[in-house]
Amino acid sequence: MEPGSRVDLGAIDPDGTPGLPGKAGKRPKAWARQELEKVGIELASHQERLYANAKAAAGRRRVLLVLQAMDCGGKDGTTRRVAGTMNPQGLHIVAFGTPTPEELAHDFLWRIRAAMPTAGYVGVFNRSHYEDVLIARVHEIVTPDVWRARYAQINQFERDLTRNGTTIVKVMLHISFEEQRKRIEQRLDDPTKHWKYNPADVDERGYWAEYQNAYQDALSECSTGYAPWHIIPANKKWYRDWAVASLLRGAFRDLRLTYPEGAFDLAAERRRLAAATVPVKQRVTRR
Amino acid sequence: MEPGSRVDLGAIDPDGTPGLPGKAGKRPKAWARQELEKVGIELASHQERLYANAKAAAGRRRVLLVLQAMDCGGKDGTTRRVAGTMNPQGLHIVAFGTPTPEELAHDFLWRIRAAMPTAGYVGVFNRSHYEDVLIARVHEIVTPDVWRARYAQINQFERDLTRNGTTIVKVMLHISFEEQRKRIEQRLDDPTKHWKYNPADVDERGYWAEYQNAYQDALSECSTGYAPWHIIPANKKWYRDWAVASLLRGAFRDLRLTYPEGAFDLAAERRRLAAATVPVKQRVTRR
Repeated sequence: MEPGSRVDLGAIDPDGTPGLPGKAGKRPKAWARQELEKVGIELASHQERLYANAKAAAGRRRVLLVLQAMDCGGKDGTTRRVAGTMNPQGLHIVAFGTPTPEELAHDFLWRIRAAMPTAGYVGVFNRSHYEDVLIARVHEIVTPDVWRARYAQINQFERDLTRNGTTIVKVMLHISFEEQRKRIEQRLDDPTKHWKYNPADVDERGYWAEYQNAYQDALSECSTGYAPWHIIPANKKWYRDWAVASLLRGAFRDLRLTYPEGAFDLAAERRRLAAATVPVKQRVTRR
Repeated sequence: MEPGSRVDLGAIDPDGTPGLPGKAGKRPKAWARQELEKVGIELASHQERLYANAKAAAGRRRVLLVLQAMDCGGKDGTTRRVAGTMNPQGLHIVAFGTPTPEELAHDFLWRIRAAMPTAGYVGVFNRSHYEDVLIARVHEIVTPDVWRARYAQINQFERDLTRNGTTIVKVMLHISFEEQRKRIEQRLDDPTKHWKYNPADVDERGYWAEYQNAYQDALSECSTGYAPWHIIPANKKWYRDWAVASLLRGAFRDLRLTYPEGAFDLAAERRRLAAATVPVKQRVTRR
C-alpha cells in the first residue's frame, strides 16, 4: 500500500486474486501451485547469492518477511509453503508468542532485535512487533498513549534496519470472518488438528472488529517508503502462497544479487590441488 | 555401528550403497530420488506430530541429527535435501564454525548445549561437538590428555540428552580422498561456486590420514547404545540423501508418535463457535 494512504480493510475482498495473470486461465489454482514451484526455485537461487555474499564478500544484506494475520489467517501455512521452497539452512524463522517475563522486562522491540536474521539469511517473522499495537491495544495491555507512541518507534526501527542492509517485506494475510469460522471448524472436525485448536481463538473472534480497526491503523501508520505493508487476500490459500512468494521474489530481484568473485588466485589453487597426494595407506596413531 | 566395536574407515567403501533394496533396480539414482520424496513426506508427518505433542500435550521429545564429514563431504547438501523435506518452522539448524572468543571462554560443550533444539523441534547440527576431538586433535589445539578426556564427557552429555527426551541420530558422511578432490575441483571450475572455495581446504587435505584416524577413534569411542554412530558412504549424493533420510525416518518410527487429544470439550466448543456472530459493520474507532 502507498505510504501515507489510509487503508480500508472492508474494501478489500479476502476472496480476491489481484495480480493473478490472465495466463492462469480457468484453473487458476493448478496454475498457481505450479507457478509457486518455479518462483520457489528462483527464491532459493536468490537466497544462495544472498548467503554467498555474506560468507565470501562481507555482504551485509539480509531479507526479512514479516507475516501478520488474524487467528487462522494462514501464517503457519504461508511460512511452510513459501519459506519451504528455500534452503532451510539459510532461514531464520521466529514465531512470536506471548511475551515471557524477561521479554516484558525489556522494551517491546528488544525481543524483535534479538530475533533479527544475521547477514546472508532470510528471516521470517510469524507475528512480530506489530502485535504490540494490535493485541496490546485490543486487550488494553497498555494505555492508548503507549501504543500510539509505538507507531513512530516502529517506523524508526524499520528505517534503521533498512539503512543497515535489511530488506523488509511486510505482509498482512487478509481473511474474512466467515473464512476464519470455517478454518476453526476444520480444526474441530479433524482429530489430527485438535492440537492446533485453542478455545481462546473463539473468544478472540468476539474482538474481530476491534482487531480489524487496530490493523487498519497499524497498516496506515506504518506503511512507509522503506518498509511498505502489503495486504494479501488470503481466503484462497493457493493465491496467498503464490502472491507472498511473488512479493518476496520481487524484493530479491530489486537487490540484483550476483555471486561474489573468489578472493584467490584460480591458477595457483588448481596447481596446489593437483599437487596434493593421495595418502598411500591409512596411518594408525597409537593412542 | 555396534557400540564398543572399533571402526576401520578404510574397510568401508565410500562408493557403496548398503541397504539399498533390490527394487531400486537398474536405475537406482532415479529410484532413490523418488523414494526420498516419499520418505520426506513421512518425515514431515512425524515432525508435525512431534511438534503437536510439545505444543498441546507438554511433550518433551525432540530429535537431533548430527552431521559430520570431511570438507566437501556433503553436510550442506544433506541438510538441504533431508531437512528440506520438513516444515522449516519446526527445524532448528545450527552450523558450527570456528569457536568465537566467547565460546572459547567456556567449556567445549557450552555452545552445543545452547544450540540444542527445544521440545517439539527437529535439530540439525552441521558439524558439532565432535569437532573438539577432530580438528582440535589434528591441529593440536588442545593437548592429547584434553581431547582424550572429551570422549567420556561427550558420552555423558549425550546420555543425559537422551534421558531427557532427545533422540540423537549421528551420521558420518564418508567420502574418499579422490571424491573430495573432484568436489574441490568443481568449486574451482564453476564461478558460481567460488564463494564456497576456501584455500584452507587444500591445506586440510594434507591432514587427510590424521583426520581419518581421529574420526575412527571418535566414532569408536562415542558409538553408544543410546547414541550410536552411523557411517554413510557418501560419494554418491543420491544414496547419501536417501540413506540419511531413511535413518531419520527409522528414529521417528521408533518414537511411535501420535497426535495428542484436544484438552477441551468438543461439543461445547462447537456450540461456542456457532454462537459467535458476524460483525454487522466495521466499527470505526476514533483515535
